[in-house]
Amino acid sequence: MQAEIITIGDEILIGQIVDTNSAYISKELNKIGVSVYQITTVQDDKQHILKALAEAEENTDIIIVTGGLGPTKDDITKNTFCEYFDDRLVQNDEVLKHVELLFAKYFSMPISDVNRKQALVPSKAKVLKNRFGTAPGMWIEKNNKVFISLPGVPYEMRGLINYEVLPALQEKFQFPYIFHKTLITYGLGESIIAARLEKFEDHLPDNFKLAYLPNLGKVRLRLSSKGNNKENVEKEMNRLVKELIIHVEDIFIGFEEDGAIETVIGKDFIKNKITLASAESCTGGAIAKMLTSVAGASNYFKGSIVAYSSKIKQDILHVSSKTIEKYSVVSMQVAKEMAINCKKMFNTDYAIATTGNAGPTTDKTDKSVGVVFIAIATPNKVLVEEFNFGQPRERVIQRASVKSLEMLRKEILKNTLNSL
Amino acid sequence: MQAEIITIGDEILIGQIVDTNSAYISKELNKIGVSVYQITTVQDDKQHILKALAEAEENTDIIIVTGGLGPTKDDITKNTFCEYFDDRLVQNDEVLKHVELLFAKYFSMPISDVNRKQALVPSKAKVLKNRFGTAPGMWIEKNNKVFISLPGVPYEMRGLINYEVLPALQEKFQFPYIFHKTLITYGLGESIIAARLEKFEDHLPDNFKLAYLPNLGKVRLRLSSKGNNKENVEKEMNRLVKELIIHVEDIFIGFEEDGAIETVIGKDFIKNKITLASAESCTGGAIAKMLTSVAGASNYFKGSIVAYSSKIKQDILHVSSKTIEKYSVVSMQVAKEMAINCKKMFNTDYAIATTGNAGPTTDKTDKSVGVVFIAIATPNKVLVEEFNFGQPRERVIQRASVKSLEMLRKEILKNTLNSL
Repeated sequence: MQAEIITIGDEILIGQIVDTNSAYISKELNKIGVSVYQITTVQDDKQHILKALAEAEENTDIIIVTGGLGPTKDDITKNTFCEYFDDRLVQNDEVLKHVELLFAKYFSMPISDVNRKQALVPSKAKVLKNRFGTAPGMWIEKNNKVFISLPGVPYEMRGLINYEVLPALQEKFQFPYIFHKTLITYGLGESIIAARLEKFEDHLPDNFKLAYLPNLGKVRLRLSSKGNNKENVEKEMNRLVKELIIHVEDIFIGFEEDGAIETVIGKDFIKNKITLASAESCTGGAIAKMLTSVAGASNYFKGSIVAYSSKIKQDILHVSSKTIEKYSVVSMQVAKEMAINCKKMFNTDYAIATTGNAGPTTDKTDKSVGVVFIAIATPNKVLVEEFNFGQPRERVIQRASVKSLEMLRKEILKNTLNSL
Repeated sequence: MQAEIITIGDEILIGQIVDTNSAYISKELNKIGVSVYQITTVQDDKQHILKALAEAEENTDIIIVTGGLGPTKDDITKNTFCEYFDDRLVQNDEVLKHVELLFAKYFSMPISDVNRKQALVPSKAKVLKNRFGTAPGMWIEKNNKVFISLPGVPYEMRGLINYEVLPALQEKFQFPYIFHKTLITYGLGESIIAARLEKFEDHLPDNFKLAYLPNLGKVRLRLSSKGNNKENVEKEMNRLVKELIIHVEDIFIGFEEDGAIETVIGKDFIKNKITLASAESCTGGAIAKMLTSVAGASNYFKGSIVAYSSKIKQDILHVSSKTIEKYSVVSMQVAKEMAINCKKMFNTDYAIATTGNAGPTTDKTDKSVGVVFIAIATPNKVLVEEFNFGQPRERVIQRASVKSLEMLRKEILKNTLNSL
């Protein structure tokens, strides 16, 4: 049983926004055992939407449409649904009440005729309640296939998927189990890894698939499988993952399913009751932002000093002016002093420091664009490494941030193992 | 003349990655006058790709395929192209030399058989040089339609689009001019704005289109048009934009085409030779990260103190413990002291400060989740406002960061106007 996601919106086709909705829906569908066959983004145009619906109906059993549900003239999904299902719009009193309530609460005003239209739905549709907005979701069945329409505003869509769509799909259908396990590797290119894994791939069972996902210096290896017997698939997956690790042991750094590095580190810190701060130059707050994106970060992350000029590195972080003069502000020695002083100022167990040239220019330093020094201060030492993260700016910042958390994690693991 | 983008990759269909490539390609195509008719994401499956190619050929003149070009077994684009165009793979010596050079430079090793395969391309294809990786781009023509294949790694794809694809398309075809102008509004809902604009929309010329894009408290109004006479379309666009602004003057905050708020602010700061720092609690470095994402930010942004605990607010930012005790750490008074002290410590003209509850819990404070105080210290005063950005955490952080930059911009405009 497969699904297709149809995204309606010129704003995606002109590149004004990135379609994050489809990725979210795909991930959630996968979790309950539904594979996504295709994602199609179409124009705000009735004929185009009708064509996409007909093609999706031919290929899949579940069709999820997002967008085109607002109260304005460019929102045409509901009328298009009426034409596709030979239906007409009728007023839904429950939706009308919900819209009236939202308006009273947030705008302290009665609703207008335009808003009233939000309560019109095709007569054949079952309404799905939108907890976070006025446009209702809709569920229409035809020849045992399900058509679902959701608003395009991301948090409204997410609410509908989790509270309405997934439970309803699981009630209606029986889905298989889908498993993914993704090994993250660092240090070798895709083709070199592929050469190592040639035999492993040749002997993969038919219901397993291996994919290579290279990006930003890492190659992720994803093993995927599907089956009706949960235990069997899981057992076979575990066996294959163990075998796969043997081939890439030297470059394996973890499983993607364990979560983002900032989430994994958060758990380490809470478990070991230790604390962290950062002193950032070229990463400009990106490390602090990553760390604080995790709920509960205040339990271990005390804060950061973004020292974006030499003067601030001296005035606030107390890096010695001699060190800066002698070695330049982008240097191993400055990174080291930043980490030591940061750890002292915030009174933490660990501290991260970065200094480098994110680019596009080198700002009077003697190091080239992309060069970054990362220092990790631990309870008993300071470790510094030099990297060249290339270009462009955005990539240098991202790679430096992720790399510093990976270095930190290695140190934590070492120290907590030693203390056993 | 329209284009279709076909993205190949199970990683998108299982929601493992978000397809940012299509948005990038769409935006770049629009700039040279090419409309994107559809974006289609398909599985790593030969039959599925063949089907997508045939459908795209029926609907459009330019078909851009990304992904499936690596050297590994799951990368099947080249073989699929051979089947589609009734072609065979031949070795391209230039590509081979390029791959060998890259390997010598980055891995200090000769290439393997797997890498050598990167140099195989369909005999009918013109090779497009990949400056940032080993997999070449390809350009195949059929009945005056163009098929282009690009690697899926974002920075490799971007290099190919800008250095190879766009120039080649402009040489081959004559494109019309496409214009978009997007007004950002803040403070009213989509439906209320739509009611105001009903007449304006009814009288829009046929070659103009108005779209409503609501998200995160803002509604963007996008006027789009297309035409062969650049001057005429531009003139008509300017006239309509002026008319549109009159209807929404009270909620209009700027044009999206002027760039992201952090870019706009950067220009303000450089033009006025003024400086900035931030003191962040609930935004956790997100403001510093936004500001430093702009190249050249070091000219005006001096740094940030991320004070993620009450103690750090006292120890490093010198917020008085009495203020925290009396008003709570999430309060107007604490935000104000943070901004004043930050401005002093960094010796800047302006400072931003935030304190609030990003959630999901309120961490022993007396304010509810989503409540954020933002303070802006200017050369002659301090301004503080209270907001409720709702939920979830990620949205609170994002809205608080953007809002603080919007408040800052308003103050800069006021002060620089006064000084004229």
